[in-house]
Parts: sequence; structure tokens; C-alpha cells
Amino acid sequence: MTGSTHAAPFTTDDYRARMERAARSAADAGLAGLLVAPGPDLVWLTGYAPTAATERLTLLVLAAGHDPVLVVPTLEAPDAEKAAGAPALTLRDWTDGKDPYAVTAALLDRSGRFGISDNAWAMHLLGLQRALPGTSYASLTEALPMLRAVKDAAELELLAAAGAAADAAFEEIRKVRFGGRREREVGADLADLLRRFGHSQVDFTIVASGPNGANPHHEVGDRVIEDGDMVVLDFGGLKDGYGSDTSRTVHVGEPTDEERRVHDLVREAQEAGFRAVRPGVACQEVDRAARAVIAGAGYGEYFIHRTGHGIGVTTHEPPYMIEGEEQPLVPGMCFSVEPGIYLPGRFGVRIEDIVTVTEDGGRRLNDTTRELVTVE
Amino acid sequence: MTGSTHAAPFTTDDYRARMERAARSAADAGLAGLLVAPGPDLVWLTGYAPTAATERLTLLVLAAGHDPVLVVPTLEAPDAEKAAGAPALTLRDWTDGKDPYAVTAALLDRSGRFGISDNAWAMHLLGLQRALPGTSYASLTEALPMLRAVKDAAELELLAAAGAAADAAFEEIRKVRFGGRREREVGADLADLLRRFGHSQVDFTIVASGPNGANPHHEVGDRVIEDGDMVVLDFGGLKDGYGSDTSRTVHVGEPTDEERRVHDLVREAQEAGFRAVRPGVACQEVDRAARAVIAGAGYGEYFIHRTGHGIGVTTHEPPYMIEGEEQPLVPGMCFSVEPGIYLPGRFGVRIEDIVTVTEDGGRRLNDTTRELVTVE
Repeated sequence: MTGSTHAAPFTTDDYRARMERAARSAADAGLAGLLVAPGPDLVWLTGYAPTAATERLTLLVLAAGHDPVLVVPTLEAPDAEKAAGAPALTLRDWTDGKDPYAVTAALLDRSGRFGISDNAWAMHLLGLQRALPGTSYASLTEALPMLRAVKDAAELELLAAAGAAADAAFEEIRKVRFGGRREREVGADLADLLRRFGHSQVDFTIVASGPNGANPHHEVGDRVIEDGDMVVLDFGGLKDGYGSDTSRTVHVGEPTDEERRVHDLVREAQEAGFRAVRPGVACQEVDRAARAVIAGAGYGEYFIHRTGHGIGVTTHEPPYMIEGEEQPLVPGMCFSVEPGIYLPGRFGVRIEDIVTVTEDGGRRLNDTTRELVTVE
Repeated sequence: MTGSTHAAPFTTDDYRARMERAARSAADAGLAGLLVAPGPDLVWLTGYAPTAATERLTLLVLAAGHDPVLVVPTLEAPDAEKAAGAPALTLRDWTDGKDPYAVTAALLDRSGRFGISDNAWAMHLLGLQRALPGTSYASLTEALPMLRAVKDAAELELLAAAGAAADAAFEEIRKVRFGGRREREVGADLADLLRRFGHSQVDFTIVASGPNGANPHHEVGDRVIEDGDMVVLDFGGLKDGYGSDTSRTVHVGEPTDEERRVHDLVREAQEAGFRAVRPGVACQEVDRAARAVIAGAGYGEYFIHRTGHGIGVTTHEPPYMIEGEEQPLVPGMCFSVEPGIYLPGRFGVRIEDIVTVTEDGGRRLNDTTRELVTVE
């Protein structure tokens, strides 16, 4: 099923080029190769998304100077062969009862250091560590954090289209009735809208009303939205294999002065974060710029998460806009700028756009109004 | 979202008892403790299912003689606190920018051996291995394969109810038109039926017609089902947090003698596998019993997967009915018995029931007819 959600319009040559680039980057980083598990890395490198990641080992082995090999369970081989990237790699299938780690080990430098997908199963890493005691491993995010971070023109176009679709969903959702309805119902409306505007997968539809808004990860609940509520909307998913993720905070009826003030503050913080975006600036500077505005107004303790995360074939990936991340921004990177203020037991405000780094600054891929919108 | 799909009716005391039992089992196995990541293990032990497993570390630490501790990102703590098992554990939250591995390491024996969830992210295992070089790890399935395998009475009731719901779905799907419709449409009907009969999550709806049936993992495609096709149906998901998984192969119109013969053979193999089930028998004997029937008739090379897998809070877990698995069956274990024959380019047949081990044999949790059903 996930397979169909990654129907990005890339060719075998595109995937071959990505695999070659990844293998070269690995070699440049002093790695003997990359071990790529089902998930976003594998989708990005091969276009292959198994129906489900299971205890059966599927692993792409990339090493400079070697042809890519995809180790795959025999009964999943027919699916793997259908992937757009399959003609650019060799399938090495293994049948139930055989040891897939021995099959993989035969492909690896017995004393090498390898990058392995963050989300590879610990069970599989342990199997490899046991089969090849002389090897060592680093997570792909640690070893090659920027592997998927810099998007090419085709990817930027897909991310912009996903962002535009999310914006269209916001323009529609602001017209629906909020007061008197459950968060869950408005969330269902949002999911329907994302699909109507071309999303094949809806990853999250946060509708956090009143006090629920003070929990940044509240999804939707049975709370009935009331007149006078602030409502944090944060929604996104995948369209043609690339992600959307935007947040706006709306108000049911007329906001109080304090609600306006807090919303203005978050808007200024989001603007400051956006303005900090340009090539060469460290990721943490984007976080600092947004945080400074909120902290400066005395709300620092209520901004309890990082300012942003990358987006691409997933809605959540490097680079992270967080204190301590010194990675410099590079044109083509795409990530969220989403400061927030969360007042426990009362309400929350978050404003989020996806931003891509340009040659001389940043460009927003979301552009609905950042003013406080009142809804019915 | 996944949270709502695991609404099993268990109490804090149930989860406390499971965590205590797991910690004792770990100690008995010579482990310093268990490290449980989001997924089925965590759901089973605590009732907590984060909206998504992410790069942010969430990990339950269980060790005999210590209170359970759930390491959780600060902004997910409010969700974790709502879990039915939360009152039976201590939350240790960490904020973005802090090192979650240091937080976890402080809870662990620095030279201990730990069991870790199969599906824990490799990134997190590597973080722990780096924070505590003196520790060693084994996957939970390797260390405590039977942790969740023996179901209690309440779990058996939920699995039986899920099986009954899947059977009800089969009784309805056999009435719909197959000929002239796409596999995808029949698959959508199956998903609707599973939900109508109480499933909160549909994991798979395989509709593999004609030659597609020869690929055991074919899901659904755009192939138009034709008169004369054999159609493998394999569907299941979660109902009240417990799994269903059943397969029947139907025929559009009158089958040929060969199609009948192959179907009869698979039925006999499934029956033989079922009859092999009783306490004390090794899992591999169930596989051997089913395989012997098919191999004896000369079709051995066309039965290309193991005979079965366990089921519980997931539709795919230990114990596995496979050559080499010497684990003896224990009353309360639940697993599939699903032999098949796959004739490349032609058709496939699979018949699957969930079976639970009783004091003196096995009991099927699926019981629709295993005769070859003809559909329109």
C-alpha cells in the first residue's frame, strides 16, 4: 500500500544517479558503504517501498565501485523488481529458513565502517554485527545527515506542489464551522481536503483547540470546539511522494488582546526564523532567531520544541533547526520554520511554513495568511 | 492515530503484571533488562502507542527489582501519560537538544546485556552502544521469543472475536461479483467489510487473481478479474487491538480438474498442519506436516514460504512455523497455518486459519469453509 504512496515521477536513471552519489558520499566520508533499509532512504534511492517493513531482511547495499545490490526476501522479489530503480541494481533474494545476514555479510568489507538507515530494525543491525564482528556502524543521519537534504529542481517542484495543495486545504478549512464541532470532525475535514487536493497519504491532521493547543503533539480528540477557542491546525502528508507540513492557528470568534499579542509574537518569531534563512548560515541560527523573539518577550519557557525539521520524501527528516546543529544551510534544502507558544491549560499558537534555501535567502513553499484568522 | 487502533480493554493492573512478568523473564534469561521501543511490544506492555515512531527516542526500560521507566520526548509526555499502563511506570522526559541516550544510560547497568525491541531504530541502538560501550544487546525475539506468544484468556477472546469478524467478511465477499472487476475494487470491498465488522485497522487485503496468485505477496492491482480465474484472498487487521489474518482461495466460475486437485492438496496440507498442533510439539513440525503433503504430491518446489507466523497485537510475530524452529508449542499460543502452492505465470492457492494451542491439540479461530468456493 505504501508503494502506491510514493509514485514520484523519477526514472531508473534518476535512481541510478542517486545511488551513485550516495555511494560516493559514503566513500568520501570514510565509509565502506551504506546499508539502506525499507523506508524513506530506500524510496529515495530506488523508488521501492515494500508493503511493510517486517522481520524479514530487505537491505540495499551501496559501496563505491560496486553495483548496488538489494537483499530481499524471495517472496517479495517480484514486488522489488517492479520498482523504477530496480533495473539499476542487482536483486539478491533469500528464502525463509536461510540466514539473510550471511547473505548480506558476503557483500560487505569484513572490517569496514558502514552507514545504516536510522530506522533499520535493531534486530537486523544486531544480526549484521554478529555476522561481521569486525564491522562498525553509524546511523545514516549521523554519517551522511545531508544525503537527502539538498533537493534537486524536480524535487523542489514536487515539494512546492505539495505545499500549494496544503495551502488550498487551509483556504477551504477556514470556511468550515469550528464552533460546536469535535476536533475529530474538523480533522476528518482536513484529511478529506488534503486528499481532494492530491495527497495520496495524510500523515497528520492536528486540530488542537483551547487547552489542547498547549500540547504541541495533541492530534485530534473528542473535545467540542467552543466559541472563543484558539485552534492550532497542523497538517500534512505526501503528494506524489513528497511532503507537505503547514500550521496555522485560527480563532473561533473574536480573540482577546492577549490571544492577539501571543499570536503576533509567534508570527514575528516565524518571520525572524524565515529571515535568518540563507546559504552558509548554521541551522541553529534559524532556531535562535525565532527563539530570541519569543524569549525576548518573556515567553521563552513556553516555546518547548525546536524550530524546524527537514522535509522531502518524508514529512520529518534532517536538517533540524535546533540549538547545537551547526550544519550550514545549502541552496535546495527544505525544512519547516514553526515556532510556537504553549500556555499550559489555556491555549497554544503555532505558525509553520516549509521554507527552501535559495541562492541568496529563503523561499516559502506555504503562503496562506499568517494573520490571526477568525473562523465560525 | 495508531493509539486509537489499540484500544484493548486492559487495565493498569494488567499492564503492571505484564511488565513485571517481562522483567522477570528477562532476569531468568540472564538479561540486565529490556529496552522496549514504540511498536507492538510497547503497546502490549503499556498500552501506549505514540502517533509515530520518530528519530526522537521513546524507550521503556524494564529491569527486575526496578520500577519501569518510560523515557519519552517532553512534548509527547502528555500523550504517554494518557496510556492505560502509565500509572504503573515512571515517565522520564527529555527535551529537544538534550542527549536522550545519556538519560537512558543513567538507568542501565553499564556492563549488562539487554533485550531490545526487534523494531527499535538502529539509530537508537547505536546511540546506546556508544553511550554504554560495556553493554551488549539481543533482539527481543532472540532473547525472549515467547514474551508475547502465550496469550491469556482475555487475549484469546479478542483474537477469536477478530477471527470471527474476518470470517464474517469472507461470508460477505464471496457474495460479491469478482468477474469483470479490478482486484483493487474487491480489495476495497474487503477493507470496508473488515471495518464494518469491527476492525479499527486494516493491515492487508490481498486479492491475487490468476497469475498474480502465484506471487504470495501480491497485494491488489489493476488486473481485471476474469471468468475462470483462481483468486487468492488474504486479509486481516486489528479489532480492539488484536489481529485477524485468514486466507481463502475462490474460483470465478467452474474450476478445472487441475485447479481442484491443487486446491484439494493445499486443503489437505492445511489440515495436516492443523492436526500437528498440540502442546510440546516443535513449531517446525507444523511446517513439516503441511509441507510433507505438498512435497509428497510433487509440488514441494511451489510452496515457497513458511507455514505460519504468530499473531497477537500484531498480525505478524513469533512463533514462526518454519523448518529449524524447535520452540515447543504451549497452550495459548496463536499462529497461522497457511500452506500454499504457487504456479508461476498461472495461479496460486493458499488456505489460512489462525490456530490456538489447547491443552490437547489445536483450535481454529477461523472456520469458514475450506472447500473451493466458486464466485461470480
